[in-house]
Amino acid sequence: MIQVNGRAYAKPGRPTVVVCLDGCDPRYLNFKNAGEVFPNISRMMREGFSALADAAMPTFTNPNNVSIVTGAPPVVHGISGNYYLDRKTGEEIMIVDATPMRATTILAEMSRAGVRVAAVTAKDKLRKMLGHRMEGGICFSSEKAGQATAAENGIADVEALVGRSSPDMYSPDLSLFVLDAGIKLLEQDRADLLYLSLSDLVQHAHGPGEREADAFHSAVDARVGRLAELGAVVGLIADHGMNDKTNADGTPKVIFLEEELTARFGQGAVRVICPITDPFVKHHGALGSFVRIYLRKQLELAAVMEAAAAIPGVALVLDGKSAALRYEMPLDREGDFVAIGDTHAVIGSSRAEHDLKGLAGHRLRSHGGLSEQVVPFIVSHPVNEACRKLAENRRLRNFDIFDFVLNGVG
Amino acid sequence: MIQVNGRAYAKPGRPTVVVCLDGCDPRYLNFKNAGEVFPNISRMMREGFSALADAAMPTFTNPNNVSIVTGAPPVVHGISGNYYLDRKTGEEIMIVDATPMRATTILAEMSRAGVRVAAVTAKDKLRKMLGHRMEGGICFSSEKAGQATAAENGIADVEALVGRSSPDMYSPDLSLFVLDAGIKLLEQDRADLLYLSLSDLVQHAHGPGEREADAFHSAVDARVGRLAELGAVVGLIADHGMNDKTNADGTPKVIFLEEELTARFGQGAVRVICPITDPFVKHHGALGSFVRIYLRKQLELAAVMEAAAAIPGVALVLDGKSAALRYEMPLDREGDFVAIGDTHAVIGSSRAEHDLKGLAGHRLRSHGGLSEQVVPFIVSHPVNEACRKLAENRRLRNFDIFDFVLNGVG
Repeated sequence: MIQVNGRAYAKPGRPTVVVCLDGCDPRYLNFKNAGEVFPNISRMMREGFSALADAAMPTFTNPNNVSIVTGAPPVVHGISGNYYLDRKTGEEIMIVDATPMRATTILAEMSRAGVRVAAVTAKDKLRKMLGHRMEGGICFSSEKAGQATAAENGIADVEALVGRSSPDMYSPDLSLFVLDAGIKLLEQDRADLLYLSLSDLVQHAHGPGEREADAFHSAVDARVGRLAELGAVVGLIADHGMNDKTNADGTPKVIFLEEELTARFGQGAVRVICPITDPFVKHHGALGSFVRIYLRKQLELAAVMEAAAAIPGVALVLDGKSAALRYEMPLDREGDFVAIGDTHAVIGSSRAEHDLKGLAGHRLRSHGGLSEQVVPFIVSHPVNEACRKLAENRRLRNFDIFDFVLNGVG
Repeated sequence: MIQVNGRAYAKPGRPTVVVCLDGCDPRYLNFKNAGEVFPNISRMMREGFSALADAAMPTFTNPNNVSIVTGAPPVVHGISGNYYLDRKTGEEIMIVDATPMRATTILAEMSRAGVRVAAVTAKDKLRKMLGHRMEGGICFSSEKAGQATAAENGIADVEALVGRSSPDMYSPDLSLFVLDAGIKLLEQDRADLLYLSLSDLVQHAHGPGEREADAFHSAVDARVGRLAELGAVVGLIADHGMNDKTNADGTPKVIFLEEELTARFGQGAVRVICPITDPFVKHHGALGSFVRIYLRKQLELAAVMEAAAAIPGVALVLDGKSAALRYEMPLDREGDFVAIGDTHAVIGSSRAEHDLKGLAGHRLRSHGGLSEQVVPFIVSHPVNEACRKLAENRRLRNFDIFDFVLNGVG
């Protein structure tokens, strides 16, 4: 057994693959046409193990991918957003490497124990975090597949391996490329433990039952079926769900919180940080349902929190310490307070910082809040009693998935 | 050490009192005049231990009072509302005794170990739960102080003890009577471990800084000061916070969810249960920010949840199992789904079931949701390192208070 962040994991007895279906709200899998769109995954849900689990807060990509590979919440690993304000320097930082990570990963410790590990991700921003402390494994992104080298990524010629060139950042193929790479690695017997992390581009634009979502998910499902066919134990998980963030007329429902608080408390009174911000935000304009607020002037925190809570669409405000403790987030990276949007509202800073032109006619769909915490949790095989009991008796988390695939399947 | 629900508690070495300040939102204690209104409690906050803690969900009186005396969340003790629908019989049940309780209490086990225990509550509805399994202790309510007998309550002549007759149900004195009774029991050396649970009548009507709230809190503070003066270790906790539940114009912000879902899915489609409902609801009209929804017809759960989540003011909907696991509530008493209101919205069933005439000119203030989970957690004395570490390293809960006063103060 390999010890990682206080939990023990068995080395894989056969090829084991965890797929993070980025933004795969459980409603995609429950929609009325789900049986046709997801024949393979539906079969796994019937014949293996299927439940709903809670993602880590905030329900964004980085905190959850890192939670999944560390088997631990953000308070343990330090990643509580894609983007944060460094309290020491006052700088706003885009997380693009593993510098802010405070914990080792299951992938790293397995690689150090001689297991052949591969981590493949759609966007390169995640790659260095997933590969943190890994030794001798394979780790690359489909975004930069063409630039992978043996020295840096443990593999070269990824485009040749997959049989096509690196996809466009805003194409669904960015995710399918990840899965195809995983299939090839299995077919060529180059890895025993794989983590494949997709992009939520399609889910941001298309809800359950929409043609484009169906087309993408059918392609994902076929590839998941192929992974199982190759004899792998497959775990399917998501980093967060997804909801329409619109008014009744379909227009985006956005609270520009920095603007509203500035109007009330004066220019420069507060800074609102949107931790969904990442290098590629065309599909959501950096708008999610969780933000951190920093006071920049001598203000009464309670008064500013009250003002934020009174804005329609704000579901909940919490002071930073309460939020950190309640949602197991690192306190030193927390705001003076946080604001969480309701199911159908996103919170931004000011109009100038959010460009919604990239939506290109789609309605706004996004995540980050409590409404996107419920995600599917599926294992291709039945799991043992210890895992079944865990799922019955405590709140199952998305970051329990490696426990289930490594310790739960005989 | 006495074992209760998996935790160990030291017998009190000196008189120990836990006061549940019903509905005492932390903002009452942070308001600008708080130093004058709360001189004794402010001193305890400076010289003893003071933090914010999270109440149990839903943030109602019964679930939280029972969590506090059991030291455990609702999934352990079974009380997840004041009012619930029994799935086996279909009956709607007002909880007025200990029948639905599934766990013993700290008070009961201390009384069985020979500690002189007293539990005093404002409303009689709570009394039987607080006295559950108690042996030879004192347990009465100010509501029925005049009817207390040695056989039933372990004490008679309560009105003589306190020096006045049982107060009106809708008077602030209902709470002050509880505190005065506690003071008398200490003065006469009749108990070593006391739990004193107040009523939130005043907080429902008056926010921080309002004259009526100040007057009530000054009276509470003086009595808390007297308890400390008598040499007791005093723990102060709340069952939930409190927020204005109003539109910008001060009118109540109410979602009549059963009406809205009936309009959408047909007569008799759903039943909405408001677990805030109790025998005395004039001050809030049985309107809180957490409801349970039961489907009465063959409907697609996801479709009904979607419809509910789309209503402005609904912060979050969760299927029953997810809600039960996330908030540690008993699954067999959960709805098909739950709906949680945002900071300033309450959710009711239909207009006919909620009478707001009792507000008598006050704006609607209430609780039940996530925004009322943060409560003050105060101990009159400094606590030991084990307690301090607990408060730093994990989410402090209001039901940790007995641990702090019994195990944390030397």
